[in-house]
Amino acid sequence: MDVAFVLYPRMTALDLVGPYEVLAHQPEVTAHFVAASPDPVTTDAGLAVVPTTTFAELDRADVIVVPGGGGWAEALADGVVAAWLRAVHPTATWTTSVCSGSTLLAQAGILAGRPATTHWALRDELAALGAVVRTDRVVVDGTVVTGAGVSAGIDLALTLVGLLWGDERARFTQLFIEYDPEPPHEVEVPGEPAADLVAFARGVFAGR
Amino acid sequence: MDVAFVLYPRMTALDLVGPYEVLAHQPEVTAHFVAASPDPVTTDAGLAVVPTTTFAELDRADVIVVPGGGGWAEALADGVVAAWLRAVHPTATWTTSVCSGSTLLAQAGILAGRPATTHWALRDELAALGAVVRTDRVVVDGTVVTGAGVSAGIDLALTLVGLLWGDERARFTQLFIEYDPEPPHEVEVPGEPAADLVAFARGVFAGR
Repeated sequence: MDVAFVLYPRMTALDLVGPYEVLAHQPEVTAHFVAASPDPVTTDAGLAVVPTTTFAELDRADVIVVPGGGGWAEALADGVVAAWLRAVHPTATWTTSVCSGSTLLAQAGILAGRPATTHWALRDELAALGAVVRTDRVVVDGTVVTGAGVSAGIDLALTLVGLLWGDERARFTQLFIEYDPEPPHEVEVPGEPAADLVAFARGVFAGR
Repeated sequence: MDVAFVLYPRMTALDLVGPYEVLAHQPEVTAHFVAASPDPVTTDAGLAVVPTTTFAELDRADVIVVPGGGGWAEALADGVVAAWLRAVHPTATWTTSVCSGSTLLAQAGILAGRPATTHWALRDELAALGAVVRTDRVVVDGTVVTGAGVSAGIDLALTLVGLLWGDERARFTQLFIEYDPEPPHEVEVPGEPAADLVAFARGVFAGR
């Protein structure tokens, strides 16, 4: 099973590594890290990761994972990720995104009229691109699975492991990565975040 | 504030990227990725990450983060990480580990007689190295903070943000990365895991 993890400049590393950690250890999986060129890709807080292939070389995948990140707007403007998704999505059993990665799926036409989720600060942007925005942490619709912001990629990938190989496998994976969270604070993602909070969060996305 | 993230072959990417995502965006932080050489380091399911400095070059840090991973036993045998930790730990305000990274802290003498946590499958190994093993997800003792397996690095780093900059900062960081988890299954980390489960998990560590 070929799993393609999409890389682009100023993506968020945890959007990639959450799903990677859950999926890439599965014995059936061959992980591909696909980018515009073979050069290392620097994520939005400085960690650089190394592609194993390029958009030009990889023309199919069983599972596609598109992370979000600080560079989401530049990736939309660039259009290279969406062009690749348009070509490769029809070959995939599952096409997935984490956080603002959903905007790239939408740009590729994959979310037209579909229910989908994204980071809480970018719901309006996703709606403007044609998706039916949900506030859920993970949304499964047909062969498309979208996750909310950043850490939601872990929940998304564990859901996908259950769909691919059943609940027992998903439970062991969850136990192995000790996903038995104890966040130090009570923080609930807002159903309708205040405008100033959204503006501040968008600033963090833009600036980092 | 210089934060040193330690890299070594076959470490677990999420052990690194959980804390990185929480810490490296903080405006005060300069992130350093420190390894034996400048060459990319391949983690235990294939993703390669790029060091920014070497153990020889970096002789101090305000915060040290030591990930665990499939390569923990080789890293112990190699001894290079522990030698660096022995030299640099006295310069640090906080020295931290995730998962089996605690065994490297222990090898460096940092956990002698101290309460500390680790992955549930490696508690006996950590005890044999002189730590007083706890089953908690995060243990703070003096200037040393240890986290349990893999995803616990997120909880550890959010705890550290609270200690460094206060609860309001920690709460916004937690909200920004949407750490409002909804694991798809009810999975509790065992207080006393069955021997066959521990053996299986150690096999996953060794083989991957």
